[in-house]
Amino acid sequence: MNLKNIEHIGIAVQNLENALNFYQNILGLKFIKREIVETQAVEIAFLKVGESKIELLEPLNEESTIARFLEKNGEGIHHFAILVDSIEDKIKAMQAQGARLIGNKASAGADNMKIIFVHPRSTNGVLLELCEPFAKEE
Amino acid sequence: MNLKNIEHIGIAVQNLENALNFYQNILGLKFIKREIVETQAVEIAFLKVGESKIELLEPLNEESTIARFLEKNGEGIHHFAILVDSIEDKIKAMQAQGARLIGNKASAGADNMKIIFVHPRSTNGVLLELCEPFAKEE
Repeated sequence: MNLKNIEHIGIAVQNLENALNFYQNILGLKFIKREIVETQAVEIAFLKVGESKIELLEPLNEESTIARFLEKNGEGIHHFAILVDSIEDKIKAMQAQGARLIGNKASAGADNMKIIFVHPRSTNGVLLELCEPFAKEE
Repeated sequence: MNLKNIEHIGIAVQNLENALNFYQNILGLKFIKREIVETQAVEIAFLKVGESKIELLEPLNEESTIARFLEKNGEGIHHFAILVDSIEDKIKAMQAQGARLIGNKASAGADNMKIIFVHPRSTNGVLLELCEPFAKEE
């Protein structure tokens, strides 16, 4: 089975402190870490729930795709991600079946992952990420 | 720990057959079952991924909250749900901390679950469901 589990749900927020007050303090999820991803101009707070994570995404500047999402939609769920065994195999298999991906190959994402997004036109409006951890020697 | 895992992600779709073509046939998630929930005027297709499910939600009529969501937003992620040990305890604890819930007590949802929604004003724009299976004797 190539699909393992929901790796995370990404939530676009204006302010990480404010969002952590709900997700960590009131809801009670376990805080993992914060990480800045300069290439995507976001700071991310990771929280754990079962085998999955919640990623709170705050834009670092107005050029960030998260800033543009917030401007258009306000705060809310931005995407979710499924962990796969082999992202290269999954990309090939899905392209062969006509799925529309954003780009043709995986790129480096947050949390030491190779990632690719499936286009919302293929997924009934969902921005769906597929991800696989980089091998330790890479 | 009161929060167990992501129980499901709910995706509002216009047509279950069309959505299943992507989520089951192209993405490759395992189909579980379909269920009609008359009280919410939806038909749901459940798919499995790890310890979680994807719920595809098709409205049965124009009065369905899913129909109204589709009219306003188009297809996409509608909500996600976290499985809790005791929904009554969690409701009390979150209300005591000022979280805004939709209603004051859990009601019967799909898939034999007691459910309550946290208001998007408390969750940075996310419609967050908490759920707990009905005990078998209930």
